[in-house]
Amino acid sequence: MKKYSNLSAMELSLEYENVLKQYNEYKSMGLKLDLSRGKPNSDQLDISLPLLSEARPREKCFSINGVDCRNYGVLDGIPEMKQLFADMLGIKTEYITVGGNSSLQLMYDTLARAMLFGVLGSRRPWCKEEVKKWICVTPGYDRHFKMTELFGFELISVPMTPTGPDMDMVEAIVKDPTVKGIWCVPKYSNPSGNTYSDETVRRLAAMECAAPDFRIMWDNAYAVHNFKGECDELLDIFTEAEKCGTLDRIFYFASTSKITFPGGGVAMLAASSANLNHISQFLGVQTIGYDKLNQLRHTTYFKNKEALDNHMKILAEFIGRKFDITLSALNKLKGLDIAEWSEPSGGYFVNLNVMPGTAKRVYKLMQEAGVTLTAVGATYPYGVDPMDSNLRIAPTYPTDDEVALATEILVCTVKLAALESYLNK
Amino acid sequence: MKKYSNLSAMELSLEYENVLKQYNEYKSMGLKLDLSRGKPNSDQLDISLPLLSEARPREKCFSINGVDCRNYGVLDGIPEMKQLFADMLGIKTEYITVGGNSSLQLMYDTLARAMLFGVLGSRRPWCKEEVKKWICVTPGYDRHFKMTELFGFELISVPMTPTGPDMDMVEAIVKDPTVKGIWCVPKYSNPSGNTYSDETVRRLAAMECAAPDFRIMWDNAYAVHNFKGECDELLDIFTEAEKCGTLDRIFYFASTSKITFPGGGVAMLAASSANLNHISQFLGVQTIGYDKLNQLRHTTYFKNKEALDNHMKILAEFIGRKFDITLSALNKLKGLDIAEWSEPSGGYFVNLNVMPGTAKRVYKLMQEAGVTLTAVGATYPYGVDPMDSNLRIAPTYPTDDEVALATEILVCTVKLAALESYLNK
Repeated sequence: MKKYSNLSAMELSLEYENVLKQYNEYKSMGLKLDLSRGKPNSDQLDISLPLLSEARPREKCFSINGVDCRNYGVLDGIPEMKQLFADMLGIKTEYITVGGNSSLQLMYDTLARAMLFGVLGSRRPWCKEEVKKWICVTPGYDRHFKMTELFGFELISVPMTPTGPDMDMVEAIVKDPTVKGIWCVPKYSNPSGNTYSDETVRRLAAMECAAPDFRIMWDNAYAVHNFKGECDELLDIFTEAEKCGTLDRIFYFASTSKITFPGGGVAMLAASSANLNHISQFLGVQTIGYDKLNQLRHTTYFKNKEALDNHMKILAEFIGRKFDITLSALNKLKGLDIAEWSEPSGGYFVNLNVMPGTAKRVYKLMQEAGVTLTAVGATYPYGVDPMDSNLRIAPTYPTDDEVALATEILVCTVKLAALESYLNK
Repeated sequence: MKKYSNLSAMELSLEYENVLKQYNEYKSMGLKLDLSRGKPNSDQLDISLPLLSEARPREKCFSINGVDCRNYGVLDGIPEMKQLFADMLGIKTEYITVGGNSSLQLMYDTLARAMLFGVLGSRRPWCKEEVKKWICVTPGYDRHFKMTELFGFELISVPMTPTGPDMDMVEAIVKDPTVKGIWCVPKYSNPSGNTYSDETVRRLAAMECAAPDFRIMWDNAYAVHNFKGECDELLDIFTEAEKCGTLDRIFYFASTSKITFPGGGVAMLAASSANLNHISQFLGVQTIGYDKLNQLRHTTYFKNKEALDNHMKILAEFIGRKFDITLSALNKLKGLDIAEWSEPSGGYFVNLNVMPGTAKRVYKLMQEAGVTLTAVGATYPYGVDPMDSNLRIAPTYPTDDEVALATEILVCTVKLAALESYLNK
């Protein structure tokens, strides 16, 4: 197939008729499919069922340091859960504090605390700052952006590149003392799938920030979530920050949500001892401790890093299949010059850029054919994609057959929207 | 034994020598006991072990409305967990939103949200109020007081009476528009053990508050926690508030922490639909949902209200024994006119008022004999008991034998401190 841009008016009309016919066939099927949600399907969750099948008599309710996990207490998590996270992420146990079932909630909580009381080094609570800004790497994770929007930050977009955020831009922006932080998904980034290069991590650790209380929100959500070949290597930002004396800059998040159960996993925040000390005075008022029994469930199931790795290999096979299906569909767009997409080896998303000005149209066409996509613009601050071009494709939730059908329809609608645009329909 | 106040100097000296001798014997035992913590001991927690012994295959991972509880989603909890709380508390399911493992955390979260965004009816976020005040019923729960202190409220003490807070005072105080709320533990109150009378509940619902965004933080922590005879009856504040058109005034909290596992229970917030709607816009940014698997564990174990009642009867026997031991020790102080104490039929505490000016001394004597008490003043705002008289006794955590010994020592130190005071030692 030739590039659409090289087609004659006649050829475009012919192609349009063909694609429209195909689209109408899909439409007549009365489908109800969903490519919008970065969540596992129930079959994938079955892989983690052993976590729920073990009876827990009294003697198995105690942590390795003798704490009765059924009772109150232990704000920062049981030692074996810290160890599991440390092994999983290659960071020190002393930086880790274990939370509840949601890292997103820990992020919200961390920012809410900063708003109310400031962070270590703040001159005043962030809610007292007249102007405050936040860097959003785009396309990025809509829930991150909404959070800082809710807290009243002015959101500054910085484009994602294959090696991470455009660091020249970031380094320039952080010279503004009202810029308080940046959202980062450093590995298998949501939605681009890219992993930050060593240089990017080093520059983030080393950069000169005008705000004394600048924070990097390091959401390492997909640390062990590769599904193709070798896992990407992400440089440890703590090690780099230690070298630069900027350790307090890092708030590091992760969870087992997409390892075991999104609704019943374990989350963590890691930060310097100085940061953790600062936080603990508030945390002690806030809670008597998170669910330690669920921590025990996880450490009983994942006896060591090897067990975790083996588990992730099984997930990889399962998830990889859905990505293969998606990419083999998208390959049918090759050569048409109307779309580009990522071919990630990890994470939960394929990042699809369609012809500028047609993303919303694709969304609508998909919706009318019964396939839900992530809302266009969701991957940008304030929900606005300036190019109307970016679509986040999430193939994990539907079954394999559903992914196959939904992505076939996607290919059809991407073509249709482009043809409509060329033909000014 | 005569009242100490009626003893001659000689008699006082003699009694002092006797009590001191006994105290020194206790001291020489090198004990390490703890009456400070309102938490169950491990034997009590064993009663709830069936909750952890059931395997959960895939087909048992779904809520009654078909939600896969292992996955993301459902911000407000599964229907059967709402029903369990509704049955337990006698409130409507539509008011209920289920949280994580800690009602304290829901309270913090509710206040943090009010600070950052205000509540329904607020003219501005509470953090923007130059002066803001909060009513604390004393003696009361230290963690409540610390929370409002942390958020910068000026704390106003109102004394607890056998029927609840002194309502004449409360009604006068809420005429001040800077007074934003009140902490209430309405049933088996911490630490007095009293339950609010019908009249108190009605007056709280009906009172005229100058602040348009006044809130009652209704912490019904001990709703089903009686251990002697019939359960106290607490009037439903929602029903009363509905009649008065003040429904939005109520934030109602409860949990299963002291029913099943303090570290792995389920908590809830109940509020009017208008309040819940207002909150949901923030909650949706804050989390993708709490742990629904733990909700399922609870509703599997407590199939209905009857199962819950039976469970509480077993706990009552267990806990009641520790209170019997405590009260039979305290009875040895009867007639001496140096102490008064509550004889609760539910909750987790005995409230002990010793001779004014001697509570800190009792604490110190106990500490030196190896028995930890709750810090004196903890039950008052800012940690200061103006009379130096109130001690919160928590008999649930130690074993029966330990409670017996620790309360014997308590009786001895209460006498000793009083005698020291009479003799100006």
